Formats: sequence, C-alpha cells, structure tokens
Amino acid sequence: MNPHLLTEILGLLQDGTNSLEQTLKELKDFPAERVKDACIDHQREIRTGIPEVIYGAAKSVEQIITIARAQIATGGPVIATRVEREKAKQVQLVLPECHYHERASMLTCLERRATAPSFRGEALILCAGTSDIPVAEEARVTLEALGSPVKTIYDIGIAGLHRLLLHREVISQASVIIVVAGMEGALASVVGGLCTAPIIGVPTSVGYGASFGGVSALLTMLNSCAPGLAVVNIDNGFGAACMAFSINRQNPTG
Amino acid sequence: MNPHLLTEILGLLQDGTNSLEQTLKELKDFPAERVKDACIDHQREIRTGIPEVIYGAAKSVEQIITIARAQIATGGPVIATRVEREKAKQVQLVLPECHYHERASMLTCLERRATAPSFRGEALILCAGTSDIPVAEEARVTLEALGSPVKTIYDIGIAGLHRLLLHREVISQASVIIVVAGMEGALASVVGGLCTAPIIGVPTSVGYGASFGGVSALLTMLNSCAPGLAVVNIDNGFGAACMAFSINRQNPTG
Amino acid sequence: MNPHLLTEILGLLQDGTNSLEQTLKELKDFPAERVKDACIDHQREIRTGIPEVIYGAAKSVEQIITIARAQIATGGPVIATRVEREKAKQVQLVLPECHYHERASMLTCLERRATAPSFRGEALILCAGTSDIPVAEEARVTLEALGSPVKTIYDIGIAGLHRLLLHREVISQASVIIVVAGMEGALASVVGGLCTAPIIGVPTSVGYGASFGGVSALLTMLNSCAPGLAVVNIDNGFGAACMAFSINRQNPTG
Amino acid sequence: MNPHLLTEILGLLQDGTNSLEQTLKELKDFPAERVKDACIDHQREIRTGIPEVIYGAAKSVEQIITIARAQIATGGPVIATRVEREKAKQVQLVLPECHYHERASMLTCLERRATAPSFRGEALILCAGTSDIPVAEEARVTLEALGSPVKTIYDIGIAGLHRLLLHREVISQASVIIVVAGMEGALASVVGGLCTAPIIGVPTSVGYGASFGGVSALLTMLNSCAPGLAVVNIDNGFGAACMAFSINRQNPTG
Amino acid sequence: MNPHLLTEILGLLQDGTNSLEQTLKELKDFPAERVKDACIDHQREIRTGIPEVIYGAAKSVEQIITIARAQIATGGPVIATRVEREKAKQVQLVLPECHYHERASMLTCLERRATAPSFRGEALILCAGTSDIPVAEEARVTLEALGSPVKTIYDIGIAGLHRLLLHREVISQASVIIVVAGMEGALASVVGGLCTAPIIGVPTSVGYGASFGGVSALLTMLNSCAPGLAVVNIDNGFGAACMAFSINRQNPTG
Amino acid sequence: MNPHLLTEILGLLQDGTNSLEQTLKELKDFPAERVKDACIDHQREIRTGIPEVIYGAAKSVEQIITIARAQIATGGPVIATRVEREKAKQVQLVLPECHYHERASMLTCLERRATAPSFRGEALILCAGTSDIPVAEEARVTLEALGSPVKTIYDIGIAGLHRLLLHREVISQASVIIVVAGMEGALASVVGGLCTAPIIGVPTSVGYGASFGGVSALLTMLNSCAPGLAVVNIDNGFGAACMAFSINRQNPTG
Amino acid sequence: MNPHLLTEILGLLQDGTNSLEQTLKELKDFPAERVKDACIDHQREIRTGIPEVIYGAAKSVEQIITIARAQIATGGPVIATRVEREKAKQVQLVLPECHYHERASMLTCLERRATAPSFRGEALILCAGTSDIPVAEEARVTLEALGSPVKTIYDIGIAGLHRLLLHREVISQASVIIVVAGMEGALASVVGGLCTAPIIGVPTSVGYGASFGGVSALLTMLNSCAPGLAVVNIDNGFGAACMAFSINRQNPTG
Amino acid sequence: MNPHLLTEILGLLQDGTNSLEQTLKELKDFPAERVKDACIDHQREIRTGIPEVIYGAAKSVEQIITIARAQIATGGPVIATRVEREKAKQVQLVLPECHYHERASMLTCLERRATAPSFRGEALILCAGTSDIPVAEEARVTLEALGSPVKTIYDIGIAGLHRLLLHREVISQASVIIVVAGMEGALASVVGGLCTAPIIGVPTSVGYGASFGGVSALLTMLNSCAPGLAVVNIDNGFGAACMAFSINRQNPTG
Repeated sequence: MNPHLLTEILGLLQDGTNSLEQTLKELKDFPAERVKDACIDHQREIRTGIPEVIYGAAKSVEQIITIARAQIATGGPVIATRVEREKAKQVQLVLPECHYHERASMLTCLERRATAPSFRGEALILCAGTSDIPVAEEARVTLEALGSPVKTIYDIGIAGLHRLLLHREVISQASVIIVVAGMEGALASVVGGLCTAPIIGVPTSVGYGASFGGVSALLTMLNSCAPGLAVVNIDNGFGAACMAFSINRQNPTG
Repeated sequence: MNPHLLTEILGLLQDGTNSLEQTLKELKDFPAERVKDACIDHQREIRTGIPEVIYGAAKSVEQIITIARAQIATGGPVIATRVEREKAKQVQLVLPECHYHERASMLTCLERRATAPSFRGEALILCAGTSDIPVAEEARVTLEALGSPVKTIYDIGIAGLHRLLLHREVISQASVIIVVAGMEGALASVVGGLCTAPIIGVPTSVGYGASFGGVSALLTMLNSCAPGLAVVNIDNGFGAACMAFSINRQNPTG
Repeated sequence: MNPHLLTEILGLLQDGTNSLEQTLKELKDFPAERVKDACIDHQREIRTGIPEVIYGAAKSVEQIITIARAQIATGGPVIATRVEREKAKQVQLVLPECHYHERASMLTCLERRATAPSFRGEALILCAGTSDIPVAEEARVTLEALGSPVKTIYDIGIAGLHRLLLHREVISQASVIIVVAGMEGALASVVGGLCTAPIIGVPTSVGYGASFGGVSALLTMLNSCAPGLAVVNIDNGFGAACMAFSINRQNPTG
Repeated sequence: MNPHLLTEILGLLQDGTNSLEQTLKELKDFPAERVKDACIDHQREIRTGIPEVIYGAAKSVEQIITIARAQIATGGPVIATRVEREKAKQVQLVLPECHYHERASMLTCLERRATAPSFRGEALILCAGTSDIPVAEEARVTLEALGSPVKTIYDIGIAGLHRLLLHREVISQASVIIVVAGMEGALASVVGGLCTAPIIGVPTSVGYGASFGGVSALLTMLNSCAPGLAVVNIDNGFGAACMAFSINRQNPTG
Repeated sequence: MNPHLLTEILGLLQDGTNSLEQTLKELKDFPAERVKDACIDHQREIRTGIPEVIYGAAKSVEQIITIARAQIATGGPVIATRVEREKAKQVQLVLPECHYHERASMLTCLERRATAPSFRGEALILCAGTSDIPVAEEARVTLEALGSPVKTIYDIGIAGLHRLLLHREVISQASVIIVVAGMEGALASVVGGLCTAPIIGVPTSVGYGASFGGVSALLTMLNSCAPGLAVVNIDNGFGAACMAFSINRQNPTG
Repeated sequence: MNPHLLTEILGLLQDGTNSLEQTLKELKDFPAERVKDACIDHQREIRTGIPEVIYGAAKSVEQIITIARAQIATGGPVIATRVEREKAKQVQLVLPECHYHERASMLTCLERRATAPSFRGEALILCAGTSDIPVAEEARVTLEALGSPVKTIYDIGIAGLHRLLLHREVISQASVIIVVAGMEGALASVVGGLCTAPIIGVPTSVGYGASFGGVSALLTMLNSCAPGLAVVNIDNGFGAACMAFSINRQNPTG
Repeated sequence: MNPHLLTEILGLLQDGTNSLEQTLKELKDFPAERVKDACIDHQREIRTGIPEVIYGAAKSVEQIITIARAQIATGGPVIATRVEREKAKQVQLVLPECHYHERASMLTCLERRATAPSFRGEALILCAGTSDIPVAEEARVTLEALGSPVKTIYDIGIAGLHRLLLHREVISQASVIIVVAGMEGALASVVGGLCTAPIIGVPTSVGYGASFGGVSALLTMLNSCAPGLAVVNIDNGFGAACMAFSINRQNPTG
Repeated sequence: MNPHLLTEILGLLQDGTNSLEQTLKELKDFPAERVKDACIDHQREIRTGIPEVIYGAAKSVEQIITIARAQIATGGPVIATRVEREKAKQVQLVLPECHYHERASMLTCLERRATAPSFRGEALILCAGTSDIPVAEEARVTLEALGSPVKTIYDIGIAGLHRLLLHREVISQASVIIVVAGMEGALASVVGGLCTAPIIGVPTSVGYGASFGGVSALLTMLNSCAPGLAVVNIDNGFGAACMAFSINRQNPTG
C-alpha cells in the first residue's frame, strides 16, 4: 500500500484494469473500515504520518475494545488517550497485550512499531508544577508510542527561575520542546527566550478562580512575545506530542 | 484641621459649643465643596492619605479648570490623569502654574507639597516594553506628585531574561515594586520570584488579538504563583502608584 | 547560608577555591532538592522571604507527606493549603506534628519559626459574609504561620454600613488590611474610602447566577475608585496573606 | 379612545354594528400608523402607560422628523433619546417646537401633557461621578417628560461615604430611587442598605480596562446583597426612568 | 425603637444624658448582635423595611439554627432561603416552629408578623416553564412572608402566546409583576408590552448549551425594549420578591 | 378541530351562536389543559405542526407521567427528550406503551401517528464522531416520531476528508441535512460546500479545554462561509429535527 | 455544463478521450479561475445552487471590479454584499450595469438570471425595528437576486404584540420566514409559536450596553423554545437569504 | 561572538583575565544596548536564532528610526512589523535602505543576511480568503527576511473543497505549513487531515458578528482533531513565521 493511493487508483481505472464501478467500490471499502458506529481510518497513518488514535473519554469499554481489536488485527498500534483506570482494567481483561500508563491515563499496544522513522534529535518536555504532570505524561507516552526519543524535566516553575537556568544545557540541545504549564503559564515565554528549538505550549487547567479552567495559561501563551512558540488546546498533551513528532521526524515530506 | 474630624465635631456638640443644627450644618458644608455638578472631597487626603485626583478622561476643559481652581484655592495639589495634550494646553492657558507630563498624559500643580511624609525606601517601576511606557509614566508622575522617591527601569521584557537579571541588585533594594506589562504579562511572576518587596502588577492593554485589551496580562498576573504580588486594573498606573505610596509611607497609621 | 548566594559562589570560583565544574555542580545540587517529581526550593525563603508552600489541591496524600518530610528534615516550616479534612487526617497519621486548621483547610507544622522578622503593625482581615470565612481563615492561618500579628472582623457586609462604621477605629489602626468579599464585593471600596493603610482585596466565589464564580467581585474590586487597593485571585486567601506579610515586614529590603 | 379597545371592537362586532371585515380592517388601521418603514404605536400609551419613544441612535434626521411629526399630529408627546447635537439642530430647523436637552442628548416636545397622572412622591436620581451625568440626565428628562416629580443628587461616589450619609434624609424620603454608577457600581448596594424605597440600578459604561464597557458595574448591581434593588441595561437612563415612573404612579392599575 | 436611631442617640449625647463613651458603646452594642462569626442586623428591618434573611446555601445546619434562634428570641421572623430538604429536616428537629417550603427550598417562622404594612394591590408572579417553578416559589414564599398579597400563574411560555393572552385581565390588574423565565427569557418582554404595572424580570438557569446558566435569559431581559422592566440576578426569586414588596407597600417612605 | 380556530370562534360570536361570555370561556378552556402546574398546549400541533414535547431534564418521574397520560388520553403522541434511563424505567412501569430509546435518552409513544404529512424526500443526519452520536440520535428519533423518513451516517470526521467524499452521492440526494459535530465543528462547513440541500448545524458539547462546552463548535458553524447553513443550540438534536421536519414537509403552509 | 462534473471528467478519462494529464489539467483550470489573488469558483453554483458572492467589506474597489468583471464575462450574476456607497459609486463608473441597493449596501448585476428554479411559495422577512432594516434588506435583495419571491413586513417589535397578530395571515402563508431582530431578539420565538413554516433567525448588532454587539439577540434565538427555528450569524442577512432560498426551492435535490 | 557567551565570560573570570567588576560590567554593557527608553537585545539572535524585531504598532516614527539605526549600525537586519504606510514613508525618508512591503505592512532592511542557515525544505503558506492576505503576507515577508524558502497559495476557502484538493501535491511536499484563516477557520483542520508536515494555524480577525474579532477561528483551530497542528495568536503572521522558521532550519540545535 502506498501513500499515493488516489493516483494509483486513477491509474488502474485509466489502464482498464478496473472499471469505474470497481474503482468507486474500492474507494469505498478500502481505507476506512466500518466497525459498528465507528469508522476506523486505516489510511490515516499514510496520509498524516500519525495512526488513528482512540479518544477514550466518551467511549464505553466495549467501544474501546472493538476499535482496538480491529487495529490490532490490521497490524496497527493501539494508542488510546483519556482512559480511566477502571475502564483500562476492563479492557486489559480482554486485551492483555495492552499496557496502561497510570499517570498519563493512556492505554497502548505497540507491538508493530518495528521501523520507526529517523528523528532529528530528542524532544524535551518541561513541566511547571506537579499538578501538570498528567498532561506532560500524556505527551511523553504519545511521543514514545510514535517512536520519538523524548526526555522530561518536571516541576520547574517560573517563580524559581534559577531552577530553569540550571537546565539550560539540556534545553539548548533539544530538537523540539513541549512546555506544559497551568495557572499563569509563563514558563513557555521564559523558555522561548532561551533557546532556538521550536516550542509547543500546552496550557493546563490546573488552577482556580481566574485561571478559568486553563484560559489564563492559554492566553498567556498565545500572547507570548517569545518567537518560535505555538500553542495547542488546554490539557492537550496528545496534540502537543503529535506536533512535536511531526517536527522531529527526519524527512516528514521525503 | 486634623484627621479625627468626626470625634472633634462630636466633642464640640457634647460640650455645648455647637448646637445639633450647627453640627449637622458643619458636617454638610465643610468637608465636601460643591462646584457645579462636581463635589470636591477636601477631606479625602485626611481620610485616605491621598488627595482627590481629577480623572480627566470624561471631563471637559471647563470642568477640569473649575475643579483645579478650587483645589488650588484651598491650598491643595492638583493631580489630573488621562488629560490629552490638546485639553492640557487649554487648561494651561488659564492655569499656567500647571505642568503637563506628555508621556503620562497628566497635569499637576504641586506647589503646596512642603512636608511630604517620610518613606521606607525607594519605589521601583519596571516596564516590559516601550509600548507600556505611558502607563508606567502615569505611575511615576503620580508617585512623585505624592512625594515618594521613585526609580524606573523600562523595556526589560521577559523574552530577554538576562536583561532582568542584570538589574537584580536594584530590584532587591526597592521597598515596593510596580511591574507594568502587557501582552502575556509574565514579567510580574518572574520578578516575584526574585525579590522580597511587595509587588504591584499593572496589566496593560498593549497587544492585539487574544490579548483582549489587557485581559490576558490581567489573568496572568492574577494567576501568578509568585507570592507577594497583587494586581490593579488594566492600564491603571495611577492606582498602582497609590497602592505603592500607601505601602511605602513610613507610618501610614501612626 | 546567606542571601547573596550567587555572589558568594562566583567569589569561590574567582579565588580558585572551587573549579568551574564544582561551581556548576554546587549550583545544581544546592538550592533545589529533587524529591521524586517534585523539586523543593529551599532557597525560596531567602529570595522572596516566604518559604515554599504546598498547594494541596492537586496532590495526593503521599506527595504531601514526601514534601512535608523533606521540609521538616531541613528545619523549614510546613505550610500546606487546600488540604481536605480526609487527606489531612491521613497526613497526620504519619506526621503527627502537623496541625490541621479546619475552616482554613490548611495543614501547618511551624516548630522552626524562632526568629520571625519584626513587623510594622497588625494586619487586619475584614470578611463580608459568613460564607467568605474559609477564604479569610486561609489568609489568617497563613499570616500567623509567617509570624505576622493579625486581627479579624468577620461578617460586616456593606448592606449594613453602620456595622462597618462601628469598627472604624480598628480599621484606622491596621498597618495593612485584607478585605474578603464575594457577590458584589463592594466592601473593599467602602473600606478603601475610610483608611490610609494599603488594602488587599480578595474576591470570593461565594454567590450564584451572575456572580460567575467570583468574577463579579473581582471586577468590582479591580474597578474600585478607592486609591490604595490592589487585588489577588478569586478565593486566594493565601496570596493575600503573602502580600500583606510582605507589606507588613519591618525591613523587607534591609 | 379608551384602554379597553379590544373589548370595544369585539362588542361592535357582536352587536352587528360592524361586520367581521370591518372589524379586522379597523384593527389593522387604527392603533398602529404606518409611516414609511416605521410603524407608530399610538396605542402603546394606553397599553403600557408610556408613549412610544423615538430611539434616535440609529435613525436619520429625516426618520426622526417623520415620526415626530406624526406624533405631534395625533396630539402625542415627542420623546426622542440618543439624539446627537448636530442631528437635533437639524430636526429643530423643521420642528422648532422641539426642545433639546444637551447633557441628556434628548429631544422633547411636550405640549400635550395636560393631565399627568398623580404620583406617590418624588423620584430621586443619585449619580456616582461626573462622567455618569449624561445617563442620569437621560433619566431625569424622561421622568419630567412623563410628568413625574424628580430630584437629583450628582457626584456622590462611594469612596467618600460621608458625602452619601449627608444626604440621608433626602434619600429616606424618596418614593423611588435611581442609582447611576459606572466603574465598580457599588453605590447602589450602599444606598440599598440605607432606605426603604425601591431602587433601580443603572450601570454605566464609564471606566476603562476591566470595567468592560459597564459589565463590571452591571455585575456588581446584579449581585448586590441589598434587598429591593433591580437593574436595567448599561447606560439605560431611559429604561430606569420608565420603571421609576411605573412605580411612582399613584394608581397604575386602577 | 424607632427609625431615627442616630438622631435619638445624638440627642441623648447632646442633652448630657449619655457620655461620649456611653454613646459609642451603645452604638456598638445595640443594633447588631454578634452570634459567633455571624453578625445579626436587627436594625435592618427599620432601615430597609425588610428583615435580615438567612442565605442558607453556604451555611451549616448549626449556623442556621444559631441565627434563627437569635431572630426568634428578639421577636423577629425567620426567613431562610436555599435550604436543602435534608438540612431543613435537621433544623426542624431543633426548631419545630419552622415551616419548610419544599418547592421553594425555604424555611420560615413567621409568628411575629402581626401588623403587616398595607399594600397597593396584589403582586403577580408569572412563570414560563415548569422547570422555573422553584425560583417562582422562592419569590412567592418570600412575598407571603413579608405580608404582601400575591397571585401566581405558572407555565405560560411564550411559544404559546395565546395562553398568555387568556390571562390578560389578571395581568392588567396586578400592582407589580414578577416574570420568571429561563432559556430565551422572552416572556418578560411580551408581558411588558401588555401592561402598565412595573415588571421585575428574574432570569433562571434553566436550559442547556448556549443558555450559559441563565446568561441568555438575563441578557434578553436587560435588552428588552418593553419600558417599565428591571431585572434581578439569575435565579434570584428572593431579590425579586424584595423589590416587589418594596414597590407594593402603600407608604414606603411615610 | 381545525387550524383556523380563532376565525371560527369569532364567527360563532358574530352569528350570535355564542355570547361574548361563552366565547371568552371557550377560548380559556379549550386549547390549553391545565394539569397541576403544567399547562398542556393541545393546540400547538395545529399552530406549529409539531406536537408539544416533554423536556424531561428538569421534570420528575411523576410530572412526566402526568403529562404523558394527558397526551395519551387526548390521542396525541408522547415525545419526551432528555429522560435518563432510570427515570424512563419508572415511567414505563406505569405507562408500558412508552418505548425508551437508549442512545437518544428519549421516551416515545406514537400509536396515533396514522396520517403523517407527505415529505419532500429523505432527511440525512451526519455525525462527526462517536461521542456526538447521542445528539444525532435525539434528532433521528424525533424525526421518526414526527413521521419523516431519515437516514444517518455516523463518524465521518473532517480529519479524514475522503470518508466524507465517499458519501457524496447520499449527501447530494438528501432533501435536508443535519450535521452534528463537536470540538471544532468544521464538518458543517465542508458539507455546506458540497450540496444544495439546506443544512442545519448542531454543535455538540463534546470536547475539552477551549471547546468551552460546545461554544467552539457553535462559533465555527455560525461563521461558516458555506451558504445554506443555519444553526441550533448546542446539543439540541431535538430542535434540529423540528427544523428539518418543518423544511421537509411537502406543504407546510398549504 | 452539468452538475455531475466529476463523473463526467472521470468518464472521459476512462474511455480514453482524455489522458491522465489532460484530466488533471482540466480539473485544475476549469472550475476555479484565478484572478490575481482571488480564486473565482464558477462551479460553486453547480455544487451548492448558489453562485459565488463577493464579500465586499474587506475588498478594494479594484478587487471588486476585477472579480465582478470575470463573473460577468462568464455569464454569471454579480452579487456583492457589504459595499459602502462610496465604493459602489466607483465600481459603477467602470461597470454601469451594476445596480446599487442603498439600504442593503449591496451591488448586483443580474442580467443572466433567465431560468430561475421554481419555488414552493413566498419567503417572508419580518423585521423588529427600523434600525434592523439594513440587515433585512440584505436578505431581501439576496433572495430577489437568487430569483425567489419575497415579501417583507418591517418594524413589528414584540413590545407591541398586537401589531404582529394583525399580520397573522400573511405569516401563516409564507413557505419560509426570516426574522430579523436586535436587542432582545424575542420576535423569533413569538413568530415560532404562531406558524408552521421553518424560521430563520437573524440576530442583529442593534442595541447598546449588554446587547454586546448582537450576542444578546443571538443567545435568545439559540435558546428559543419555539420548534422549527434555526439561526445564522449576527447581521448575516445574506446567509439567512441563502438558507431561505435553499429551503424554498422546489426540487433542491432533483 | 559565539552562542556560549555566558560560559566564555565565566571562563575569563576564572582564569584571571577579567576581574569580577569587569565581568559584571561586560555582562551589563554588551548584549543589550540601551537606546533612550528602548533596550536593543543584540544577543537575541544568538539565543533564539531570530533577531530582535521592531513591533511598529505602538511606536512613533522617531522610535522606529532610532532602533533601526542602531540595528543597522551593528550589522543586523531590520525587520519591523505593523508599520502603516504613512509611518513607513517617513522612516524611508531618513533610512532609504529600508524596503516597505505594502500588503504586509512591514519595513525591512536585509543587507547583512549573507549566510542564512540551511533549511529542510520549503515552507508553504495557505490563505483562506482574500481578506486574510495581509496576515499571510506578514508571514511570507518574515520568512523571507529570515532566509527561508517559502511558497504561497492564497484564497482557497473550505467551502470550495476541490480547490484545496487541486493543490494536494504542493501541500504534501512542504516541510512546514502555515494556514491563515478567519471566520470559521476550518481550513487548518482540513489541511491537517491531508499531510504529514507540521501545521501552524493563524486565526485572523476577518469576519463579523459572532466571529468576535478572530475568537471563532482561534477556537476552531485549538479544537481541531487533526494531529500535528499548533496555533499562534490572532493575526500573528509574524509569530507563525518564526515558528515555521524554527521548524524549517536544518540544525536548530547543532
């Protein structure tokens, strides 16, 4: 199977190998498999470089098992985010090959991952407070599941600036940096003034009162005057990891 | 005239010096002078330590002159904020003793200021970007008008953290610090982690898009995890100066 | 140990006592101790005058115990905010020297506190309604833990203005005032018009409907026309106490 | 013409005086007169006690003249709000019987007003700052146009509480009170704790930064713990006057 | 006891009956009784015409009992809002004279209410949907507790306009109308166009999605073009009743 | 019974068949039946083409049963939305003829539905993710209850655009399309660029962080540049179905 | 030219008439013509039934002329919205065949429109106040440009409900209704309770204070309990017309 | 000069070449040059790879000239954003070597740029509508100023999806993609589902009504379910270019 699927299919139509009906049927059946109400997009990895991931928050144990099974059957990895411990245990009863990451609330089954792409360097995850760690862990587990090397430094809040400065060397060597911070979220700006790597800010919902569930940190990061900084949704460790993976791949377009 | 006005007036009533009618009349006439629609609170300085200030934004040239004249007549200082240059010029034609502070958009007439209170030390104003300077200047001119020693360091954004670190000594010696910052407003947090003096954050409306007219900087400062930091309204350099003055006075309650 | 740590360490480097490697190692090991994922900032008290405080809301019993133990071991005080009663009980089973403050939801262990700094006077906490008391108590316990004298007057809402006027003398003698109020939060403005001390407003999330979890009180306080008033985050009794402590210290910068 | 129009028209139908067609036609033609695109509701005064008022903000000089003329022709009063000075001058060129109220930005022509209803007492308008006066004036001119006795006290901000207390007697005698205040809008709460009359709060858009165009004052008033207080839209002096008129009328339902 | 307390006390000071110390002590002890942390404002009814009411939402059973007991002891009525059924039962075990109003979530004990003021007419409460009834009931029970005659019409949504028209006569006879409505809250506008009585709008938090907890209904009512309409906080049936009581009293200022 | 009820009743009045009293009584008694606090609008179907529907979210089991019984008694259909499973079970114990739709959280009893109107074609419901299915199901069950043919395609997110293109033919044949999508809600725009049928967007509250409970999807749909798209409230599958029914009816006005 | 363009082009590829290169070239050149930076989507009418429309607000006179010319050259209609009078005049100097609609701020050139589709009936536009007319006119001109019969009733606000009732017959005969209303926007709900036709609500930015630029009217309409109502963006008369056109077409999918 | 400045300076201190005083002085004088109130951070390019850029919006012509001159004098590039045409002309009178980019509102002087870093590939800028072009141009000019190869495709809105598909090949070859879109901003999601390159979304303030100055597009992009997408502030073409530059550099950390 190759990424230029449409061209290939059009070619088969043109050279008479396939009829117009066959062509349309193939387009319908192949890349997306319908499993009850869910529609699994096996072709997604080819198109975007990132396999389809199960967003576990609003899915039942049964739905997770159904989709995970289909993914395992086609040789794909299983990456499920936002799976509570209780749900995860029930999934593991049926699919013991799945591994549960407690702090990240993720389930993974990564047996396939034989030939990961090559990477530009090491991704670095910085985390402002201990309460932000679950989001940072979601990013870490995702990056590892996608094959990227990753390093973490946790609990280096901005109020103790010198803590950050002590890690300057590691920071300057990362190929891409994810900064996870709640409350005032200023860590991203500070890091942005210290390094050349692209930075992905992840505001978290940690805080109370006028943190408004992460809005404060989100606005801080969006308004940062540090260049080379972009932002993902509040608590979206997974999205940050995908962006970091996409940046860190050696030849994303080759 | 002394600060315990109410006690004094009650005393005169009690010892028979004044009748109840006189007492009530005195209370009515004395501390607040009615000038057309405005009501000048001459007693305010006694009650709060800060003289009544003219908020010029919504007042006509005529209104400013009327109030300023009454203040000068009773020997008080004139401090007017948010006076545009054109308005100021017209006021100065009539009241040439008023001085206009261009960058602060303020008018002052401070001849009275003979015996300022003594102060704990020097107030320090830090300003993140050149666009924030007008707000910082409003704070500076106000502090000077109130008699407090004040020092300023402008344009030390957080993206260039080392700039800030170079000023560490000055920062550590201030008796109170005002931090003026727009956009992501993180400077207050960083300074808050470096010093023991109380810090007053002034978010500014500098920025665009998701800075939402200063809301971003306001939220950042309110959510700061640096202890010893409190916040005033967006662009409120005047209010920050009043708070700093109140903190910096030697014996505010003595 | 002394506050001019950086200078000292640079000195040892310059006079050859320490090598560059030693210097860097010392900087790394000394001021911040890594305890699992948490990083305890022992130097914080030196830098900011306020010891590191445990924000208990998002921490497990285990995490609180680990950090508290490390703080006790280095002779520091333990101050933990937002610790629910159940959590606190479990911490006390292991660390019986900790005291639980029911209404403030705080845990403290203050054996060290031998030589508190001297203070300018007495801090005063005013509280608008009975529902605001937990936030006021967080401020009170924190101020006491930091060694500051503190007095409280609770339940003096603005709708009964005369109640407030009855306390005028106490108000006029405080060296710094914390005003805790939810709903319309107007108490801060009223107090601000009556006294010369700096005022710290703490909006609370008490209310319903258009109080929007404290936003109404926050906006009221930010827009107050009373001079000498600054504001902290909604429900942030702890932050208000830190600011009050910082103001009330005799020689914060000496 | 009488208020029970519908009953009357039904009666004429029932007793055979009018046919069904005539009835429907009458209903169509009578109470609302179509003037170009505008539809003048002559019956409104009967239904609600308040004549139709011209909202001038979005109308052209020509539209205002057209509607005013039709109102004058049917013997009704002309009350137009939010008419800028320039527009007003042009209207007066054509309709010199109209009077322009500068500070209220209103145009009125009140020749008809022979038999005003009787009133319970005097309405009182309190205004916090000089910048709030235009809104207070809109309320005053409207109340006068509707025939109600009205008194005003302007510029009694909350920061100088004693100013307010000096007017306690006038406040306690009003039959209904309108409180006009911007910024933190706390004046309404304070007044609400002092009197028995119903209070109508009018938040104004006076302020800057976190006053958010009047939202701060609006929220303060909505969250006031003073009983007997209700609120109208930001800057809506006209609406407050209508409510006050409705309350102050002797026999609104008689 | 009489409403002109301050005058009276000043008189006793003036004629020498009381010393200055006595006067101050009397002022301190009399009108507000301190019960633990709560401060009961016995004088409130004299000042505002409405007795102090217990806001039960954030109070413990014990706190409610303490305050209620003090009110009963001084002959006052007990009116407590937002008391959940479970709490109410426990209060009734101790104070069986209290009556619980299930749908209004209120506790009252009204034995004193001998000489209610005379009223202008009947207050009318209109309620848009069945889900809004608890808020309407809070208004009804409060009005009854304050002695005002009151009538209710429930479940007359705007989508069935004819339902409303059927009640036109009752509506036209009310002396004041409370309109309780959630979701789009348009009922207040429609009623406002039909009657001469003052209308108090109570937006409710009934709805979902873009009703934003009552904000939609609140904005609708604030922007109503019907004259003679003012608004209270979301779900504030109690506040609406206080306003209605204040309007409906025969001689509020007499 | 016929839709021109008012005309008919006026006719009976005119020709003397009925007296004015009878007429008014008839108007009062007939079209709306009062069941305790609820007022059932039997005439609604005649006026709007859609029978009165029970909004179950804020109703007790008892209330639902009372209203459903009255509807069954008058031969009408029962359509109840937002009924949780537990509530539904209890209703079914009493009214076993009601059917519960698990995923839609709806209860229906549709025995009457003999002569549905004729329709223009088939309504189509598109659903972006598996988490949006409950809202889509609410739309589907409602459309079926109203008699309209309906087809569904679930889980065709925008990130896999080709999935959507595979269904182009079905999309192009629908007479009206409902697009249900949370998070960024872009599916509506994409579909809007592909077809000629009117589209009804239903934003859902699916998402986290900056999805703000469906606000993000709502704004996306409101700002769509695709023509022929209108929007209903967040999670309002029922409302979308009513709009679709209204569009899909053959002769809505005939 | 026919609507099944893609099928046709695939057919030509399959039967060998066109090569793969030709096919791709054709796809690229044909349906979208690049005019400087703008890309005109000639195929849009085929896909969606509505021709590409020029959004004039952010375009220069030159850009409008360029695009209009290209549309005229290919025989298409020109429909440009939000074109200020001055801009329009300059466009007309060059393209005198364009007609300017003053109140709608639209430019049209409709010579082509020979064979409009057949329609189900007459679209009706209801408009609450005179200030809302420009938005209503945008809808009317658009509907006429698209060939649909359309009727308008302007200035029938909800405060004068009887005005609305007088038009009941016209309302009951429309095949689709557009309701344009600002401020509280309740007109849509009222109309929704009176008719069977689908209703499209257009909130307008008319109002001040808490109307928040149309947000109030938008929320009212989104939360309406009237079934058969959907909403478009604030001030989006054009979008409402497109939706109405789409609904009103006889065979949108035939 | 080299990037490890701090190490180098510490080395000179250690080996006795420099005294502690000299070291501190050097740190103070060197990397940041003070020009009146502005502080130019010459070292920024070393630290972050991106030279200091002049944010022209809030600066006077004089301030821009002063800073630009200092940058030219030290051999650096001048990159100034948000400079209006009039201001630019005046700057060019003094500094004719500056080039003005009309559509981007930028001034640049790039003579130095001899040895740009090597890049991974070509950055691609996609722009949804003609009104979004100024933001896209800001990104393009910035990328060119920083030396990166860049390609643009403008005006490919999501409503005409096939336009986008025609450019699939170019999209699949880019090394990083910037998507600029206002209104509903869905283009970023659609592109995100089609390619493997990292995507930077730039919401624009284009739109009206519920686009809320770009908030709608911002939320859409933040909530996108397409992986590999991060977002910058509204209208921040410059920030997106910095992020893209940072990603596209061959060896950012080497």
